Amino acid sequence: MDISQGLAALAKSGDVLFLVWGAVLVFSMHAGFAFLEAGTVRRKNVVNAFTKIIVDWAFSTVAYFFVGFPLAYGISFLIPAAELQGANHGFSLVRFFFMLTFAAAVPAIISGGIAERAKFLPQAIAGGIIVGLIYPFFEAMVWGQFDLLGQPTAALAMSLGAPFHDYAGSVVVHAVGGWLALPAMLVLGPRIGRWVHGRSNPLPSHSIPFISLGSWLLMIGWFGFNVGSAGGLQNISGLVAVNSLLALVGGALAALLVAKGESIALHNGALAGLIAVCAGSDVVHPVAALLIGAVAGLIFVFGSRWEAEHLKIDDVLGVWPLHGLAGTWGGVAAGIFGSAALGGLGGVNLGSQVLGTLVGITLAMAAGFVIYKTLDLVVGLRLTPEQEERGCDLCLHGSEAYPEDAIALNSVSV
Amino acid sequence: MDISQGLAALAKSGDVLFLVWGAVLVFSMHAGFAFLEAGTVRRKNVVNAFTKIIVDWAFSTVAYFFVGFPLAYGISFLIPAAELQGANHGFSLVRFFFMLTFAAAVPAIISGGIAERAKFLPQAIAGGIIVGLIYPFFEAMVWGQFDLLGQPTAALAMSLGAPFHDYAGSVVVHAVGGWLALPAMLVLGPRIGRWVHGRSNPLPSHSIPFISLGSWLLMIGWFGFNVGSAGGLQNISGLVAVNSLLALVGGALAALLVAKGESIALHNGALAGLIAVCAGSDVVHPVAALLIGAVAGLIFVFGSRWEAEHLKIDDVLGVWPLHGLAGTWGGVAAGIFGSAALGGLGGVNLGSQVLGTLVGITLAMAAGFVIYKTLDLVVGLRLTPEQEERGCDLCLHGSEAYPEDAIALNSVSV
Amino acid sequence: MDISQGLAALAKSGDVLFLVWGAVLVFSMHAGFAFLEAGTVRRKNVVNAFTKIIVDWAFSTVAYFFVGFPLAYGISFLIPAAELQGANHGFSLVRFFFMLTFAAAVPAIISGGIAERAKFLPQAIAGGIIVGLIYPFFEAMVWGQFDLLGQPTAALAMSLGAPFHDYAGSVVVHAVGGWLALPAMLVLGPRIGRWVHGRSNPLPSHSIPFISLGSWLLMIGWFGFNVGSAGGLQNISGLVAVNSLLALVGGALAALLVAKGESIALHNGALAGLIAVCAGSDVVHPVAALLIGAVAGLIFVFGSRWEAEHLKIDDVLGVWPLHGLAGTWGGVAAGIFGSAALGGLGGVNLGSQVLGTLVGITLAMAAGFVIYKTLDLVVGLRLTPEQEERGCDLCLHGSEAYPEDAIALNSVSV
Repeated sequence: MDISQGLAALAKSGDVLFLVWGAVLVFSMHAGFAFLEAGTVRRKNVVNAFTKIIVDWAFSTVAYFFVGFPLAYGISFLIPAAELQGANHGFSLVRFFFMLTFAAAVPAIISGGIAERAKFLPQAIAGGIIVGLIYPFFEAMVWGQFDLLGQPTAALAMSLGAPFHDYAGSVVVHAVGGWLALPAMLVLGPRIGRWVHGRSNPLPSHSIPFISLGSWLLMIGWFGFNVGSAGGLQNISGLVAVNSLLALVGGALAALLVAKGESIALHNGALAGLIAVCAGSDVVHPVAALLIGAVAGLIFVFGSRWEAEHLKIDDVLGVWPLHGLAGTWGGVAAGIFGSAALGGLGGVNLGSQVLGTLVGITLAMAAGFVIYKTLDLVVGLRLTPEQEERGCDLCLHGSEAYPEDAIALNSVSV
Repeated sequence: MDISQGLAALAKSGDVLFLVWGAVLVFSMHAGFAFLEAGTVRRKNVVNAFTKIIVDWAFSTVAYFFVGFPLAYGISFLIPAAELQGANHGFSLVRFFFMLTFAAAVPAIISGGIAERAKFLPQAIAGGIIVGLIYPFFEAMVWGQFDLLGQPTAALAMSLGAPFHDYAGSVVVHAVGGWLALPAMLVLGPRIGRWVHGRSNPLPSHSIPFISLGSWLLMIGWFGFNVGSAGGLQNISGLVAVNSLLALVGGALAALLVAKGESIALHNGALAGLIAVCAGSDVVHPVAALLIGAVAGLIFVFGSRWEAEHLKIDDVLGVWPLHGLAGTWGGVAAGIFGSAALGGLGGVNLGSQVLGTLVGITLAMAAGFVIYKTLDLVVGLRLTPEQEERGCDLCLHGSEAYPEDAIALNSVSV
Repeated sequence: MDISQGLAALAKSGDVLFLVWGAVLVFSMHAGFAFLEAGTVRRKNVVNAFTKIIVDWAFSTVAYFFVGFPLAYGISFLIPAAELQGANHGFSLVRFFFMLTFAAAVPAIISGGIAERAKFLPQAIAGGIIVGLIYPFFEAMVWGQFDLLGQPTAALAMSLGAPFHDYAGSVVVHAVGGWLALPAMLVLGPRIGRWVHGRSNPLPSHSIPFISLGSWLLMIGWFGFNVGSAGGLQNISGLVAVNSLLALVGGALAALLVAKGESIALHNGALAGLIAVCAGSDVVHPVAALLIGAVAGLIFVFGSRWEAEHLKIDDVLGVWPLHGLAGTWGGVAAGIFGSAALGGLGGVNLGSQVLGTLVGITLAMAAGFVIYKTLDLVVGLRLTPEQEERGCDLCLHGSEAYPEDAIALNSVSV
């Protein structure tokens, strides 16, 4: 092997390592989704949270492997293993793995919004449909084989001045997830007892430590999410890493300030910052990232209050303000702060960003209403009141979260 | 430095990064073992679970550094640091680190089976003996310096058509661990109260969230386990990553189906899939991996029931069906699905796979009986009934898992 | 692009991946700090622990981005993003990220010592001052732009025979953190009830599982801390990885032995070993690392007892013996075991090590007294006795750690 071939081989190996490193980090974010939900719900629905996230992951993998990824990128895996592995160490396969970790985030996001009241199988099926068809359809418009929004050949966006730019999925993943969750929550309605005689009655969380663990897993894994979006080692960007960091910090500090030291807001503020910076993390200046994050933190805190107090939507983890609104802000913010005039790298256009973001939101809401309304009419989406009162863990999974404690309490009451 | 040397140096650095990345991920699986056991046992044995896993790790490191790794690979580390570091950035050292994370999994596997009733030091010593002598002996036959099973020069296996193939240790690590645990559990006998008048009385787990945390840590770290088994960056395989993923999913879905939404089965089903795919992850097609995982999930669920209800073996974490049976299946499955006729890469032989798997199982069972029976006769393996009733945490470690709660309960009872 | 340029580009990408990999691991250590503290404190101060670590991280990021890192290394980030990204994939930015994870460890260390009694904002401000000014001042002397201790041009150290050598911060991070915490704890005084009529009354920890989780996160992330200290892929060292491993094991085993199976000592013993090996991890032999770790484990156990029983300092997580004393030992030990006569790589000098370590300790103690005493006089550092009795969670963060349990208990008492 000559030097030129050796260099190419090493570069290919490096690409595979880079994407596997990123994929494993984003895979670990799914543990974060699980603990964030398990900590936020009541004790009787904890096992359900863990079960949903793993089953959503499993359904997503199957749907995206056989349908979603081929739809978005025009690559099928139903060829012999030797061809899959090929001469580039199976790079397409790890690209699938990495992109799956994004796709599967969508049902995990929705799961947090509709927690504590949805039937198990219908929502898992909805997740499979979304990851197999809906998400890849928009993904293909932005990152894939449809020349519609994100490609340098996408006519409408180019007529505005630049392709729609969403580096790591503020819109493709987060806004889409949050705006899909909205119709699901509306179709399901609020949990029993969430509003009593029209007055808000927040249902208590089970464990702040698990919320914190979930947030940490998400924050840590996010560096794989954003940095890995380079797609290959030769495009790795330190700017992306540090912009992610500063947006996290901006979101945390803004939420801390307005929520007066309240811990759940602080953790979610950090996540809101990360969500908002995804789209422009490769083009904005770190100081702009700090600002983008801070605005996202405010959007989360005030958006959550507005959602609960005025819209009276029962969004258990606040996924619509968190992923939906902060993701929307992120799509737009990339068009503002990405410009060279504000210290950014340029190549983005505010009009294209607004266009792409609106398309994503619209598709998500429309698809969400169709899918969840249809499932509700056909098989029913909601648990019976008896199941909801008793809790998903005993009704659906045959075990409480702390089986030994449950037995101890029963023997005391006898 | 000319370009050729520069390329070689970069490749060597990449190999070290690759193996350290993998080793750190597999090291984090040991936290997974700890939480899986801590969540499964009763509250009175939680501190014991954490302590055992760290002490097993420490004994394993010492035994494998001074004896086990040199035995398996013929490389000693008792030379000056400058020579250890050498011109290749200390590659042998990180190879030791990576292989240690596999070796030390064996006592961690056994630990879960014999939980809640074994004496601390005797079982830690057994772990040291296994990691220093037993495991490396079989390891040397498959991956190391003995020309007996896995080498292209191993006569018996080659006479069947191909060397015994165990890419990431379905047999070397998992089957060996599970089949070593079996005699240990038989020598120890069941926990007090596990069967009452011949009727099964499952003892309650302490925390499903900790079981889930442990499973997630294992699932995440597994990508280091399997992908890292390439041994060097130039051999990295995307196929291995995605096969691991699909086997995980297959195991989870099959267990979900037959265990009707039960959460512990779901988590273990995913792990069973990962265990079974280790051996053939580099040669089977992803669709075959999905199937291998699904069969492993079924093996875990039905194997666990059979073990508990018919064999009446008290296997606290189900390590024999999980690691022993699913690992055995994995060794055989590589010989079936690795063939080119079934979309695999070929180069494997079913006869060789059965041979290598049987040798591993036989060695493990024989060594396990000798070690645990000897220790039981000489120093005793089992806690006194008083210690077992009171719990390991107070008897062996001087502290309960939740010291503040314990004090609060005491003051209430006064 | 010719081959030479291609190789240089790949090497630069590799450096960025290497440092991001390390930075993410060390970032995850901050989750470890959070759980270690949350597990050790009482239930009423758990939310406070999580909040402090994230807010310390946020303040540290801002202080170090705008002031600290530019002070230590003479590099400012207030230039356009295109220049930040430059031709080397934003390497300076990821270097900032990596070094920030070290800097921010200092307030996280202090946080554990002064837990359960300090006001929120004053201590967060102290953290910001330390990370913006104090830490980078000493950092610049050892690793940065001041020719004073660690540089080959540092006159005083060179006159002793070699620069002060602190590969991964036994002194720069850990000893400085521990010796900064000492005056903070002295200024604050002990928690109410820690000594009753002069008799020691250890306040109970809330959760050993969280202590274990925190320790595991720290142990896992430590491989990023030490291995990442190479600064670039071409300097990666397998020796560093394995020395870290053996020091961890040495510390665990020594603590296990003298603390008779006590679990918190075991976990901290492992951390003490890691702390002590940082300085010399690139120059000592693995067997020496085992010994360095073992001594550090003993230092932690006996130092903690001495601190509590004789000095009567209320150090909630034992951060002064852990980071302060074991870090000091690490600075000195590098000068002993780094010598070629003891199997090390040489190039270190005991006199220089003692000098650098003493300078670090002295600066830390002096700065700590000035900062914490001034804050105490001007705004007050300590909570009111009423706040301390009620707990930080309800007083400062508006929520208990387990909100659902708190409501359940209240309804029982009604």
